[in-house]
Amino acid sequence: MILINGKQATTIEATDRGLHYGDGLFETIEIINEQPVFLTQHLLRLEAGCFVLKIPLPKKALLIDEVMQLCKNITHGVIKIMLTRGSGGRGYRQPEVIDSTRYIALHPYPNYPESCQEQGIVARFCATRLGLNPLLAGIKHNNRLEQVLARAEWQDDYQEGLMLNIKGEVIEGTMTNLFVVKNQEVLTSHITDCGVKGIIRQLLLEPSRSLKYQIKETILSKEDVFHADELFVTNSVIGLWPIAQLEGKAYPVGKVTKQVMAYLEMLKKQNLKTC
Amino acid sequence: MILINGKQATTIEATDRGLHYGDGLFETIEIINEQPVFLTQHLLRLEAGCFVLKIPLPKKALLIDEVMQLCKNITHGVIKIMLTRGSGGRGYRQPEVIDSTRYIALHPYPNYPESCQEQGIVARFCATRLGLNPLLAGIKHNNRLEQVLARAEWQDDYQEGLMLNIKGEVIEGTMTNLFVVKNQEVLTSHITDCGVKGIIRQLLLEPSRSLKYQIKETILSKEDVFHADELFVTNSVIGLWPIAQLEGKAYPVGKVTKQVMAYLEMLKKQNLKTC
Repeated sequence: MILINGKQATTIEATDRGLHYGDGLFETIEIINEQPVFLTQHLLRLEAGCFVLKIPLPKKALLIDEVMQLCKNITHGVIKIMLTRGSGGRGYRQPEVIDSTRYIALHPYPNYPESCQEQGIVARFCATRLGLNPLLAGIKHNNRLEQVLARAEWQDDYQEGLMLNIKGEVIEGTMTNLFVVKNQEVLTSHITDCGVKGIIRQLLLEPSRSLKYQIKETILSKEDVFHADELFVTNSVIGLWPIAQLEGKAYPVGKVTKQVMAYLEMLKKQNLKTC
Repeated sequence: MILINGKQATTIEATDRGLHYGDGLFETIEIINEQPVFLTQHLLRLEAGCFVLKIPLPKKALLIDEVMQLCKNITHGVIKIMLTRGSGGRGYRQPEVIDSTRYIALHPYPNYPESCQEQGIVARFCATRLGLNPLLAGIKHNNRLEQVLARAEWQDDYQEGLMLNIKGEVIEGTMTNLFVVKNQEVLTSHITDCGVKGIIRQLLLEPSRSLKYQIKETILSKEDVFHADELFVTNSVIGLWPIAQLEGKAYPVGKVTKQVMAYLEMLKKQNLKTC
């Protein structure tokens, strides 16, 4: 089911700037027992994206109300919130008054095998590189051709592909953030020139007494990734998947990964309780 | 009027990947006396874009037929062709069979004052920088947030803004390619890391006996642009606009600019004759 500006719909104005320029932002949120997980964090990132793109954010109460409408009777699912600059303007020039389009859609939870979380996934390096654009780095905007092209490199033989930027730094997966465990340290790529600041990534970066390891942002080379003790990826829908194999090399689902996984489960439970 | 997959429509599927990821390409074509100008060149660039993005190109005869339907009785107008990867797939992953969406729209010719062509325009440098992405450079894809943000920097006080990339090279205008005349040489930025290979730009780069000046691709600095003898910008809708003023400095509508303008007019006439 899709709500567009609050009304059930299957189509959108053909003049929408989201369609013409990728002029919008989105969030993908897990639903558990009618509750959107980490909704506050998702709405904060949407707000940050709106600030960068100068798209007016609708009232949060309205967004929450529409999200909750779609969550009704859903035990496990996914909500996508998308916000575009709406229609109007001339060419790239935006209209004087921006009437943004709210798109909120409910999807079934993807049928990922349980083994992804338990035994880990098989991953690869993508040939498609991320470009550099500091202005757009971090936010979850609709200009996603790089991810589409990277994901088109393989079919079912891998569960995720890791992307380097054009400088050769390893940044993230096509749909996840990457974490490298080395000598009891947990590292993830800085998101400065490219990449998305995933909600789970940001939660893990927050200092916490419950997590033994402080997770650090750094520059990651392909070597760093290859020589990791453990590897895992995160996003809001999958949670955390260990990488069991990367380009043929095996990695254990190790102690650190399991602790981070347990920590995330705890955060999720806490979040659902306080909803 | 808009034709979507050959049928008159005002809306598009809300699941279209053009909307969600900017997963598409477009062309903007001037119509004169029912004839789309440089249609062959536009379709060739669309084809090149389809090759990069791996979107299947519909039969050209079909596209031409639909364009010609919209051109009927139009003395002066603009056609936008857009092609997206259509609906389907899961997240960034494209569907196994891509059923692309054809969008063809007719717009009135913009009411640009004649002075733009005759006396030249007032231009500025944009603060928004172009990111670097060699993979997507050249083609006219739908990931256009940089242009949207650059164009949002001013209202009516300028007719065009020039964009640097993050390395500090001057690449193009928000909707045009830039040409720098210096000591009887005509230079335009290489399009390697970013920027669009405009149809008019490409026509001017083709060696010709009718044009005295061979136009060269190079790296342009802000200094090169400031110290130019003449400056002009081009695109398929405006043709050529001289820059009369850039950041307060005046530039003449000089001999070289006028010759290039006359050459373009000749190419356009030739093209319309052979349609």
